Amino acid sequence: MPYIDVTPELPGIISLLSAYPYIAGPLNAFTQQLLRGESSLTPGERELIAAFVSGRNECKFCMRAHTAVAKNLLPNDQSKSVDKVVNQSDFGTVDKKMQALLDIAASVQKGGKQVTREQIDRARFNGADDRAIHDAVLIAAAFCMFNRYVDGLDTWTPEEPQIYESIGTRLAAQGYVGTNKNQ
Amino acid sequence: MPYIDVTPELPGIISLLSAYPYIAGPLNAFTQQLLRGESSLTPGERELIAAFVSGRNECKFCMRAHTAVAKNLLPNDQSKSVDKVVNQSDFGTVDKKMQALLDIAASVQKGGKQVTREQIDRARFNGADDRAIHDAVLIAAAFCMFNRYVDGLDTWTPEEPQIYESIGTRLAAQGYVGTNKNQ
Repeated sequence: MPYIDVTPELPGIISLLSAYPYIAGPLNAFTQQLLRGESSLTPGERELIAAFVSGRNECKFCMRAHTAVAKNLLPNDQSKSVDKVVNQSDFGTVDKKMQALLDIAASVQKGGKQVTREQIDRARFNGADDRAIHDAVLIAAAFCMFNRYVDGLDTWTPEEPQIYESIGTRLAAQGYVGTNKNQ
Repeated sequence: MPYIDVTPELPGIISLLSAYPYIAGPLNAFTQQLLRGESSLTPGERELIAAFVSGRNECKFCMRAHTAVAKNLLPNDQSKSVDKVVNQSDFGTVDKKMQALLDIAASVQKGGKQVTREQIDRARFNGADDRAIHDAVLIAAAFCMFNRYVDGLDTWTPEEPQIYESIGTRLAAQGYVGTNKNQ
């Protein structure tokens, strides 16, 4: 049972954003910019980083939801590799630029100071520009926030796969703005 | 030297928000709502949580900046206790509600699942309402993001105390909106 009063049938961050709409507004606008705005990474690549970091933080709600969004947004061949990346069993299924950025994201998850210049150089060597590096670091950092917000208040984590499939389809199609009650 | 191209004379998150204004807009709006908007915690109490969590994440830029803001915003007697709280040497200098909320924030810093119902009950027993608990958790979570953003891109951390005093005075007076270049 969540630590604070929220609508019982709403899961994860959806319950918090519904109960605290003045936070939901700017937080959704930030998420929309970060995951759907201008970037040298595709929305699918950004959702993959979000799902991967959520997995490392063991936040099941965010991990399942963003895994579903990533599968919806990535091309077919890459979509099949999402589970392997999120389970950290096989990075070889994504290109070398994404391997390097996921490696940076794994360091950010542990702590900002864990990122090394060698990791940055490897990302650049494999085609990442400033914007890709910036976005990978900030997405990883942001999900260290979202995961703690969701689990720190003990929100409901459904087990039914179809709930996450539904969230994935909606967020892939509509993004994060204007969906406070249903995000 | 920062990992990505930013204005060299700008420190910490100020350099990132200046270089990435489309992120700065929604991120500043979120910070303003979280630290200055409606809450059952005062802006000074919220800045104290921000400084405390930044200290635990060993993010010197954020710790020094928000310590300075907290000192500006808290009443004189509480202002004197900020360093002791941030250095984690003495929580007895703040009231029991804040002690309980700082204890929750310390758990959030480690990970969302570290927060226990006993910690929540203790906060409630000492006068924290839902909003205070929500805000303490989200502020602690948000600074796990800001600290990683600042250190994960290796931004400049000045050593001069007067720089943080200046940031503290400005953020106490003006807040976080409309100050992208000078935050």
